[in-house]
Amino acid sequence: MTNRQVLLVSRPAGIAQAENFAIKDGPMPVPADGEILVRNSLLSIEPAMRGWIADAGNYAPPVALNSVMRSVALGEVVESRAEGFAPGDVLTGWFGWQDYAAVAQSAVIRRVVEKDLPQSLSLGLLGLNGVTAYLALTRVGEPRAGDTVLVSTASGAVGSAVGQIAKLLGCRTVGIAGGPAKVAQCLNEFGYDAAIDYRAGTLGEAIEAACPDGVNVYFDNVSGAISDAVMPRLAIGARVVLCGTASIDRWAPWPQGPRVERHLLVKRARMQGFVIFDHMAEYESAIAQLADWVRSGKLAYREDILDGIEACPDALAGLYRGENTGKRLVRL
Amino acid sequence: MTNRQVLLVSRPAGIAQAENFAIKDGPMPVPADGEILVRNSLLSIEPAMRGWIADAGNYAPPVALNSVMRSVALGEVVESRAEGFAPGDVLTGWFGWQDYAAVAQSAVIRRVVEKDLPQSLSLGLLGLNGVTAYLALTRVGEPRAGDTVLVSTASGAVGSAVGQIAKLLGCRTVGIAGGPAKVAQCLNEFGYDAAIDYRAGTLGEAIEAACPDGVNVYFDNVSGAISDAVMPRLAIGARVVLCGTASIDRWAPWPQGPRVERHLLVKRARMQGFVIFDHMAEYESAIAQLADWVRSGKLAYREDILDGIEACPDALAGLYRGENTGKRLVRL
Repeated sequence: MTNRQVLLVSRPAGIAQAENFAIKDGPMPVPADGEILVRNSLLSIEPAMRGWIADAGNYAPPVALNSVMRSVALGEVVESRAEGFAPGDVLTGWFGWQDYAAVAQSAVIRRVVEKDLPQSLSLGLLGLNGVTAYLALTRVGEPRAGDTVLVSTASGAVGSAVGQIAKLLGCRTVGIAGGPAKVAQCLNEFGYDAAIDYRAGTLGEAIEAACPDGVNVYFDNVSGAISDAVMPRLAIGARVVLCGTASIDRWAPWPQGPRVERHLLVKRARMQGFVIFDHMAEYESAIAQLADWVRSGKLAYREDILDGIEACPDALAGLYRGENTGKRLVRL
Repeated sequence: MTNRQVLLVSRPAGIAQAENFAIKDGPMPVPADGEILVRNSLLSIEPAMRGWIADAGNYAPPVALNSVMRSVALGEVVESRAEGFAPGDVLTGWFGWQDYAAVAQSAVIRRVVEKDLPQSLSLGLLGLNGVTAYLALTRVGEPRAGDTVLVSTASGAVGSAVGQIAKLLGCRTVGIAGGPAKVAQCLNEFGYDAAIDYRAGTLGEAIEAACPDGVNVYFDNVSGAISDAVMPRLAIGARVVLCGTASIDRWAPWPQGPRVERHLLVKRARMQGFVIFDHMAEYESAIAQLADWVRSGKLAYREDILDGIEACPDALAGLYRGENTGKRLVRL
C-alpha cells in the first residue's frame, strides 16, 4: 500500500502555482508508540497556506521544501498506539495533503462529535474558518447591535460566516466580493443587507452609499486597494479586524499604501490582527455555538469540493483566482 | 484698553509659519450674560494646532480664517456674569491666543486648584499633555510591568510624561528623540532606560538593540519614517498608541508608507487612535494622580516659556523645527 503525498518542491515568490507542488508515492507511515495512524478523507485548502509556505517570518515556521504540504484534514483513525484514540474515531488535525498520516496527539485539533451534521463542515464553518469568523468578529470586532459591519471576501469561507454572525448579533451587514455572481450569493445566500462588487470600479462611492453613517466594524480578509477604500470611511470608534491579507501578492519588496495612522487617530479607531491559534481555549465552545446556529437554520454555508489528491496542487492558486464559490476542500 | 489678538490670516499647506498669523489690536471684549471675562497669563503651543488650522476634516472644525487662533490658555477671571465664577478664579480653557477672552462656561476646561504647584503646569503636565500621556498610555497602551515601552518625541510634553509614567508602572522605557541634547535629556531628566537619536541614521538597528525582545507598547506621536522603523519590531500582542502624526508635513496628497497590516496580523498587534476630548470624564482624576506624582518628585517636567504675545506666530513653527526643550508656552 502506498501513501500519495503532495510535497512542496519550490517556494513561490508570489502566489503558489501547481508547479510548486509534486505528487509522490510515499511509504505507508507506521505509527510509533504514542501515535495514531489516520486515513484522510477530506483536505482543506486555505488562503493562509500562502503564508505557511512563504519564506518570510510568520506566525508559524514555513513548510520545509520537499516535505508534505501542511494542511488541516479530516480523517479516521485506522490504528491507535495513543491513549484515548481508537480505530473509527473521526478527527480533524494537521494531517497534511496526503492519504495517510502517522501523528502524535499534538497534531489532532479535535474529535468530530456532530454526527448529525455533514463531516465536511468540520473543515469549514465548524472548523478553523467558522471559529475564526466567530471569535475574530466578536473578540476583536466587538460588534454592537445597530453597527454597520463591512466584510471583505464576503462570500468566502470566513467572510460568509462573519456576515451572517454579525447579522445574528443585530448588525447591518455589507459585503464586498468580486463579480456579480458572488455579490448575488452575498445577498441571496448569506443575508447581507447590501453587497458591493469591487471589480465595478467605484468602490469608494459604493461603500459610502452602502454605509451612510460610516463603517463601525471592518472585517478585513484582503488588505490592499479594497482596504484603502474603506479606511477613509470608518466611523468614530471603528474596529478594523485584520484576519488576512489575501490581495497582497508578495511582501518582498514590502508593499506601500496610503498611511492609515491619520484615519485611525482622527476616528479614534483601532486596527488589530487576529490569529486563531491564540484562541484555541475557546475553540470547542465556539463550535458548539456555530453548530447550534447551523442546526436551527440560522447559518448557511457553501462548499466547493474538488475530487482526488491530483486536484491539490492547483487548488490553492484557484482560490486566489477567485474561482471557488464557498469553502474549498479536496475529497480523497 | 485694547486686546491684542493673534489671528489666523492664511491657511498653510504644510506647517504653519509666522506669516500665517497676524497680531492685531482688537476691542476689549465685554462678557454677555452667562459669560466671564478672562485675562490670559499663559498661552499653550501644541503640535495638535496644525490639525486645528488645517482645511481637512479632523476631530474638531478648522479654525476660521481671520479669527483668533484656537488655544488652551491659563487666565484669571476679571469679571463674571456666570454663576459659579468670581473674579480671581484661575482657570484653564479655550481662551485663544489673546490678552482677554469673554467666554461661556463651555469654554472652561477646569479650575486650577493646585495652589502649591506652578500654575504653568496646568497647561502641560497637569493639563491636556499630561492627561493625554496618562490616559492614552494606560487606556490604549495597557502597559504591563516588564513590558518594553517605546516612545517617539520622547522628551516632548506628552512623550516625557509617557516615559516616566510607564517607568512608574514597572516598564522598561526606550525613548526616540532628535539630536544628542534631547537624548541626554531623556536619559538624565526623564529616566528612560535607553534613548535613541533618530537622526543618527540607524534607527531600525538601534531599536532592535534597545528592545531585544521587541516592542510591547509603541507610543507614537509622529508617524512617518520613525514609525515605519518600529512596526517590524513589534512584539507579539503589541499595542501601538496613535497620539499624533507630527512628522507628516501634509495630508494632501495623502502620504504613502509601508503597509502595516501584515505586521499587525502576524504579531496579533493593535494600533489605536486616541483623542483626549473623548476622555474628559476622567480628566480630574487623572490630574489628581499626576499632581501626586509631581509632589512626590516622581514626575519631572521641563518647560520652554517664551515671552510676549509677539512670540506666538513663530512659536508653532519652532515646535516643528524641534527647537523647544520641554512644554512650550507663551507668557503674557
